Amino acid sequence: MDSRPIGVFDSGVGGLTVFREISRALPGEPLLYLGDSARVPYGTKSPETIQRYAREAAYFLLERDVKMLVVACNTATAAALPILERELSIPVIGVVEPGARAAVSVTKGRVGVIATEGTVRSRAYTRAIHAIDGSVEVIEQPCPLFVALAEEGWAGTNVAREVAEVYLAPLLREKIDTLVLGCTHYPILRATIAEVTGEGVTIVDSAETTALAVEAALHDSAIRASESDPKYQFLVTDATERFLRIAETFLDHSVDHLDLVDIARDQPVG
Amino acid sequence: MDSRPIGVFDSGVGGLTVFREISRALPGEPLLYLGDSARVPYGTKSPETIQRYAREAAYFLLERDVKMLVVACNTATAAALPILERELSIPVIGVVEPGARAAVSVTKGRVGVIATEGTVRSRAYTRAIHAIDGSVEVIEQPCPLFVALAEEGWAGTNVAREVAEVYLAPLLREKIDTLVLGCTHYPILRATIAEVTGEGVTIVDSAETTALAVEAALHDSAIRASESDPKYQFLVTDATERFLRIAETFLDHSVDHLDLVDIARDQPVG
Repeated sequence: MDSRPIGVFDSGVGGLTVFREISRALPGEPLLYLGDSARVPYGTKSPETIQRYAREAAYFLLERDVKMLVVACNTATAAALPILERELSIPVIGVVEPGARAAVSVTKGRVGVIATEGTVRSRAYTRAIHAIDGSVEVIEQPCPLFVALAEEGWAGTNVAREVAEVYLAPLLREKIDTLVLGCTHYPILRATIAEVTGEGVTIVDSAETTALAVEAALHDSAIRASESDPKYQFLVTDATERFLRIAETFLDHSVDHLDLVDIARDQPVG
Repeated sequence: MDSRPIGVFDSGVGGLTVFREISRALPGEPLLYLGDSARVPYGTKSPETIQRYAREAAYFLLERDVKMLVVACNTATAAALPILERELSIPVIGVVEPGARAAVSVTKGRVGVIATEGTVRSRAYTRAIHAIDGSVEVIEQPCPLFVALAEEGWAGTNVAREVAEVYLAPLLREKIDTLVLGCTHYPILRATIAEVTGEGVTIVDSAETTALAVEAALHDSAIRASESDPKYQFLVTDATERFLRIAETFLDHSVDHLDLVDIARDQPVG
């Protein structure tokens, strides 16, 4: 038994979809969420900058005594997971590998991946899928407007549908049978995306599969908790009001413990 | 005569619309542009964070020996201009006051202002307009999706038009006769915005009026330059490739001297 919290890190609010799935799958675990809202979004930034930001967040959470780190952001996972796994002594779980694994398990051979510019540029999903099954065709497509649409409450609108049609057209032309939502914001637009892809395409939400990976890693390391009323704490680096407003769309419960923190000031020298 | 460059600072690429107008109005002036693309956008962030970022950028440009600072970002102007004016010994020009002045000079009494969440929350335009003429009605409207639409190349699309219709509807219901583009990204969407507002509404682009304010301030301080081939230099804090790609949409010439800099590391303690 280990009652220390699991640290869940994202560039902003997107990781709340992962937080939600972990809290559902593991209701006895205390969770500490960190959203780097002072520097959101990561998706349009360079790998070097994302690595710097991710390290700062990870070391900040380590100081708060987390027993495990979940990188609940595809862009940060794609750019920084190997570095974090190498540097940290606690288990580190990213969102790309669980999504890739789920996609391979359901696909008939043609997988589409939609993600941020940074994640697509990294080809992290193609590599992760091919590491499991080299015969799967992977087509990646950046959807930069989706994050803004999800955050600004445009899910389900005609505008969201038209944007989805433009972004998904190249994937549908390539006859994908499976679509990975490779950005933690995208589950908010899931209904719209599913409308455009139609019934022939299976949608993989890596938030769900990441929660399963977290459960397995807790078991492997024998660090599970089973609190009867586990504490959920939220930390953000900026604009708490905006976070609270958007969090309502992403979570199915209210955010009770929210604090503003500064993670960039005392960064580790690396 | 003063051949030092004018520093032009923005959170990313939006300020290039201001840069363009300054280079047109003052073809003999060397210009040094700084885009804080590692932390873009500012529009959704808190005043305190924006102030910190703006000070870091200003001190960074001071070290590069600029003779004047143009804050070519409405959000940064709204949050940080008084602080920068107080702290810096060189002239500091923001984009809000010139836009407000232009709006008052053309309006029949009802001005709409579209801007980022941060600028609208600050009420900087309402205050600036009322400081000139207290009888003008000002209605402010945040348009958070416009930045992403402009940067991702969706200007002129049906999606951009539908989004503009949603955002502008409350202003048109209020019978505005003048519309201020209160974000330096919005001139990219000007044609779409004008289509939605129709001919009865005069559009004020603060990039143009800011260039005039820069010209006046250079004259007042007797620090004009008249280089026959003035140097244009561009500095960004991240993702140079993305900057180059988007800059093409914003400028009418190519970007020749672009460097990656780190402005957050050696910030002044204030």
